[in-house]
Amino acid sequence: MAGIKHLVMAKFKEGAAVEQLLLDMKKLALELDIIKSFEWGEDVMKNDKYSHGFTHTFIFMFDSAEDVAAYMKHPRHVEYGKKFRAGTEKILAVDFPTVIDKIATA
Amino acid sequence: MAGIKHLVMAKFKEGAAVEQLLLDMKKLALELDIIKSFEWGEDVMKNDKYSHGFTHTFIFMFDSAEDVAAYMKHPRHVEYGKKFRAGTEKILAVDFPTVIDKIATA
Repeated sequence: MAGIKHLVMAKFKEGAAVEQLLLDMKKLALELDIIKSFEWGEDVMKNDKYSHGFTHTFIFMFDSAEDVAAYMKHPRHVEYGKKFRAGTEKILAVDFPTVIDKIATA
Repeated sequence: MAGIKHLVMAKFKEGAAVEQLLLDMKKLALELDIIKSFEWGEDVMKNDKYSHGFTHTFIFMFDSAEDVAAYMKHPRHVEYGKKFRAGTEKILAVDFPTVIDKIATA
């Protein structure tokens, strides 16, 4: 499904409650209907030259830029965002309408 | 489909042949069978504080880490990589086994 992807990358602080932050992000994604899909993962290449220190990637999909904007202002997101930022050393975020050039068929 | 995602972000150089680089990347993704899916997009948030200057995101999916490794060494990738690096000011890349917590149903 095409749509707009909200991609976030993070480098967590030493001692941050990473497992809890990941669990709460999953809950948030499952609870909010405007989030159409959510996937994430932890870098296995572990090459700082390429990762720029970011270890985790989170990809949320929305139907429209309006839905992303609504998500940004949503009280549940604002509340979670405070905890997330408190636990991270670096955050990267971009929003892009996704162009799907090849789809997995199996 | 779960798998391992190879995510690349780029900031192109002033004057780089961006359209050609994008077209050649699409060709590469379509030609190589080990690339199971390929999507990309250009950031619309355009907030350097969050994007760290990266403007384009490319997401390739593979079945396994072995397939990513094979791709890295593939002559077609090595050849393309030279042109890509020559046209970019900054590159970010991570590989992550993807955890799908919510799937788009429509």
